[in-house]
Amino acid sequence: MNIQVISSVDEALSDGLAGNTVVVIDVLRATSTLITALVHGCAGVVPVETVQQAKQAQKPGDLLGGERFCQKIPGFDLGNSPFEYRPETVAGRNVILTTTNGTRAVQKSQKAAYILAGALLNASACAEKALELGKDITILCSGTGGVYSLEDGLCAGLLVEEMVRLAGPELQVGDFGLAMMYAYGQVKDRLTEALFNCYNGKRLTKLGFSEDILYCSRVNAVTLVPMYHNGVMK
Amino acid sequence: MNIQVISSVDEALSDGLAGNTVVVIDVLRATSTLITALVHGCAGVVPVETVQQAKQAQKPGDLLGGERFCQKIPGFDLGNSPFEYRPETVAGRNVILTTTNGTRAVQKSQKAAYILAGALLNASACAEKALELGKDITILCSGTGGVYSLEDGLCAGLLVEEMVRLAGPELQVGDFGLAMMYAYGQVKDRLTEALFNCYNGKRLTKLGFSEDILYCSRVNAVTLVPMYHNGVMK
Repeated sequence: MNIQVISSVDEALSDGLAGNTVVVIDVLRATSTLITALVHGCAGVVPVETVQQAKQAQKPGDLLGGERFCQKIPGFDLGNSPFEYRPETVAGRNVILTTTNGTRAVQKSQKAAYILAGALLNASACAEKALELGKDITILCSGTGGVYSLEDGLCAGLLVEEMVRLAGPELQVGDFGLAMMYAYGQVKDRLTEALFNCYNGKRLTKLGFSEDILYCSRVNAVTLVPMYHNGVMK
Repeated sequence: MNIQVISSVDEALSDGLAGNTVVVIDVLRATSTLITALVHGCAGVVPVETVQQAKQAQKPGDLLGGERFCQKIPGFDLGNSPFEYRPETVAGRNVILTTTNGTRAVQKSQKAAYILAGALLNASACAEKALELGKDITILCSGTGGVYSLEDGLCAGLLVEEMVRLAGPELQVGDFGLAMMYAYGQVKDRLTEALFNCYNGKRLTKLGFSEDILYCSRVNAVTLVPMYHNGVMK
């Protein structure tokens, strides 16, 4: 089994993902928020690329969620902070979600055999699930505006480390995956600090979202692994 | 001062490098070989992209060096192994060098203010020289066929670590540079092993070049930092 890590959405070729299990990662904050919504009883999350698509996809009872420039979209019910996706708000309801990078990564993965949502929050469960599916695995870091983001790379490194631990040496890990695994290994004991020091960490802190960073850096806090099927993450 | 690391030649935008100091890295083996040639008294190394350009650039007394698919080019004097670039062969002579990735990286950097050649062999001296030049710094990993190569990334990480040590916290390091610095920190005590385990390490070992890997993994063995001027690395 082969594992490759892709550094950002813009580096992904849709055809290169065909038939694989793709793990989409957007630690700050789309996949962390998506996982949180489902843990809190949300019926399903529908990732879409544009604000217009979100409005068109909305059915009675559905919530609109997402961000542009890290802020809630005007007229939407929810932004992109996991703290907004409380059980009393999302339980039993669908959320139509559009974010700048994470939902684009899902759209780019449409030819994959399976699409999973990964984050630090569910890393161990996600690694196990991806291996169980038996396909070659592509870990797709969303990044930011087409550029590599450290928090996604470190999460990819944790997933690779976990997969190697579970599956042993028959796993073929590409050079970029090895680099991310090494990078994660170096900062695993000061992961929250590393997240605060990276580009998105600094940006979100300035915007008043430092609690989100703390929350999203909690490794293996949950065991739910969202899987995409017929347009919905469940 | 800003430091960014670019993961492979194909990721570099020529305009994005304009006015910067660019450190080109191709640990296995172009920049390691280039540095070795100059340490051994070679008058200058002329990096060119194609075999034809190499033949056209050759003047009487010049040596032709380079590789395709890791092997010496038919009709050339030298391949891409540092062991071929002995003092008795190269002293006082120019070498016209064409390799698959490293020389392309130099060509891509033509708008830079300064172009330096970096490798594990001269890392500390290279970091110091790049800082002295006073411009924003781009560390351009050559990679392999447009894809990230671990050995170049780890060398970039070592350069970033050294620059941070020398210049302190006023240095602005991008997310990818931080990731490479973390990755290097994790494997610095088993760097040779990491080089043997990456894609190019395995490929060169199969082709009988494992001595080259051992040689190219020697950190700070030399203090020479080649700089590009008027088409020649000296």
